Amino acid sequence: MALVNENYLKLAAGYFFPEISRRVNAFAAERPDLAKEIIRCGIGDVTEPLPPSAIRAMHAATDELANRATFKGYGPGTGYESVRAAIAEGDFRSRGIPVADDEIFLSDGSKCDCGNILEILAAGNRVAVTDPVYPAYVDANVMFGNTGAALAGGGYEGIVYISCTEENGFLPEVPDERAPAPDIIYLCSPNNPTGTVMDRPLVEAWVAYALRHRAIIFWDAAYECFNRGGAPKSIYEIPGARECAVEFRSFSKSGGFTGVRCGYTVLPKSLHAYTRTGEAVALHPLWTRRWNTRSNNVSYAVQRGAEALYTPEGKREIAALVDFYMGNARVLLEGCRQLGWKTWGGDNAPYVWCKVPDGSDSWSFFERLLREARVVTTPGAGFGRCGEGYFRISAFNSRANVEEVVRRLGAVACAV
Amino acid sequence: MALVNENYLKLAAGYFFPEISRRVNAFAAERPDLAKEIIRCGIGDVTEPLPPSAIRAMHAATDELANRATFKGYGPGTGYESVRAAIAEGDFRSRGIPVADDEIFLSDGSKCDCGNILEILAAGNRVAVTDPVYPAYVDANVMFGNTGAALAGGGYEGIVYISCTEENGFLPEVPDERAPAPDIIYLCSPNNPTGTVMDRPLVEAWVAYALRHRAIIFWDAAYECFNRGGAPKSIYEIPGARECAVEFRSFSKSGGFTGVRCGYTVLPKSLHAYTRTGEAVALHPLWTRRWNTRSNNVSYAVQRGAEALYTPEGKREIAALVDFYMGNARVLLEGCRQLGWKTWGGDNAPYVWCKVPDGSDSWSFFERLLREARVVTTPGAGFGRCGEGYFRISAFNSRANVEEVVRRLGAVACAV
Repeated sequence: MALVNENYLKLAAGYFFPEISRRVNAFAAERPDLAKEIIRCGIGDVTEPLPPSAIRAMHAATDELANRATFKGYGPGTGYESVRAAIAEGDFRSRGIPVADDEIFLSDGSKCDCGNILEILAAGNRVAVTDPVYPAYVDANVMFGNTGAALAGGGYEGIVYISCTEENGFLPEVPDERAPAPDIIYLCSPNNPTGTVMDRPLVEAWVAYALRHRAIIFWDAAYECFNRGGAPKSIYEIPGARECAVEFRSFSKSGGFTGVRCGYTVLPKSLHAYTRTGEAVALHPLWTRRWNTRSNNVSYAVQRGAEALYTPEGKREIAALVDFYMGNARVLLEGCRQLGWKTWGGDNAPYVWCKVPDGSDSWSFFERLLREARVVTTPGAGFGRCGEGYFRISAFNSRANVEEVVRRLGAVACAV
Repeated sequence: MALVNENYLKLAAGYFFPEISRRVNAFAAERPDLAKEIIRCGIGDVTEPLPPSAIRAMHAATDELANRATFKGYGPGTGYESVRAAIAEGDFRSRGIPVADDEIFLSDGSKCDCGNILEILAAGNRVAVTDPVYPAYVDANVMFGNTGAALAGGGYEGIVYISCTEENGFLPEVPDERAPAPDIIYLCSPNNPTGTVMDRPLVEAWVAYALRHRAIIFWDAAYECFNRGGAPKSIYEIPGARECAVEFRSFSKSGGFTGVRCGYTVLPKSLHAYTRTGEAVALHPLWTRRWNTRSNNVSYAVQRGAEALYTPEGKREIAALVDFYMGNARVLLEGCRQLGWKTWGGDNAPYVWCKVPDGSDSWSFFERLLREARVVTTPGAGFGRCGEGYFRISAFNSRANVEEVVRRLGAVACAV
């Protein structure tokens, strides 16, 4: 008799983002006259076309596949060497951070990697996440058996929730030393959903904490390209991080690759986990084995597209894309501030985190913005208990739409 | 303290195919004068360019991503609806097999799916595989904790090995009812590595066995396009299979997608697994949730490329590719037979399975063919104990190379 993975039965509701889509579609079906006016600032999907250098590289790679002499079949499980080298040099060594080519593992995106990485670790590790948090971390850990049951008020038994609130500026504080230490800690900076950025002393404190407890930090840097304020972009800027951290990066936001699907994980050779008897095991060979056995990595043309982002032209094109989205974020931030709404993020992140201005809960305010302003936002409660009473606005849109969103929010604000 | 997944420490040697590459590279380094002469019939990678219809679709999709008006961001976690519909109609409903569009789950390949599917099942299910077997099944199950330790003579404790030998024509017989039944059964037809094809009565016997024991069959049909002899292509041709089987398909061999990375899984809504207390749980919602939470599926252009394989032109181009490789297989089969070598497969599969003619073990004969004929084959022992004494020759190559391989094997045969 085939047994099911009963951890899946603990999963509370549907995955958060499809739930938002469901509600938007329901509204559109109910009011087809208003459907066309809906502006989506919810899921955080990019809107601008791919950088021309990536497009050219993808076309050229596709042409290679059309020709017997240049055809490419199975690629290396961990990604083509030239792509790994371009990344290690472009994102790390050129910035003085020692990362070897073969410490880069190409993948189909950091959402995938944040879950897949759990495969090489034991089920039952104690996992810490911030609250609010990107829900994919938590759901993946539920599936892997790292949690207990769903709790009545949201969240799961067994997870260590690090409260991020107005009081601490929505930044994760290192836990009290008297509490049982987590084994795995997810940190995301610039943060999704709050848009806050961890400064160097805070990242240093976390690295010291992880080293002290032989914990591993999963550093999600999917939004690092928006971090231009001098705070750490890579966790490996901090001494000791190569002994306690995995870093996840994505081309989704920098290169507009949300539909192209490419990202990477950095797994240093000096990173270890432990057997139950306390023996240290290097994770690099396990992760390499995982990729070679379980996957053949992403499409050849996708890899070439990612590689092209590291050419001088590609870098200029990324910078222009980031400038554009950060311009949007500024418009949103200014707009909210002029309405007297309390905000976080939006200066080094493409998300503006807003306090619900009318005192209602965040799903109610989500529905209100959807119905009264035809604007899709993301209700904070979907990111965790501490997200209740807040909402996220994404800067990924056209400038005209962003300006229109500000106008419509103004109309709602008048009615508040 | 972060604990490692100790199941990884059970994994015997390196993954099989990288080990072959290592030996070939070692020989090439040792004899650079002969390196250029090496013909690779080892890993089973295709050699012919992609069908023009797929190339056109991939270019067109790439152009869509270059334009704001047609840009595509995040796609559905389970694949675009139009692609799923084209598959369900093209591979199933048009052949009288009832499969719904949303029972098709697009993916980056069947190697990946054969492992990923284990995520929704409990660790500790009793797993049966044929011997010889495609090693990725076994290694994935070791990683997931479905086995005990590696055994001295090869294989792993806890796995049920179904011996396929000369005596039974390298076809998997249904186990004796007195033996404890497996919970999960991997079957691959046309078979990798033996090239044998299960006929309808044999597949029916397996479906009946699975239903009787509430076991699940993982039907790996990655090579179904080469099966033109009337034996079941899809397991869903057999009544009852929708209640006991998952099917894996790949565009790697039909469309030459080994480097493009796309395949799919069929998971019927009527398929259940069980909780420890015996409650039936439908797997379709779990697998849907798995994809939506853990992935955003494959690149938009890749999906469009796969969809194009279902156009009339695409189908004609696939048929021509299959004709070509099957022509190669015929040349190899004839060649081996004329040498008096004992063979299986090669008529409805792109692999010829050969008995080692000189009485040596299969790694020794692999080395001999590499050194004396500069031909890379795959040693049977790498596929399991019952593979010892046999080797696999892949038909994926140019016709000229295949003919040259036959000539060189002839020279080795004379020396046997």
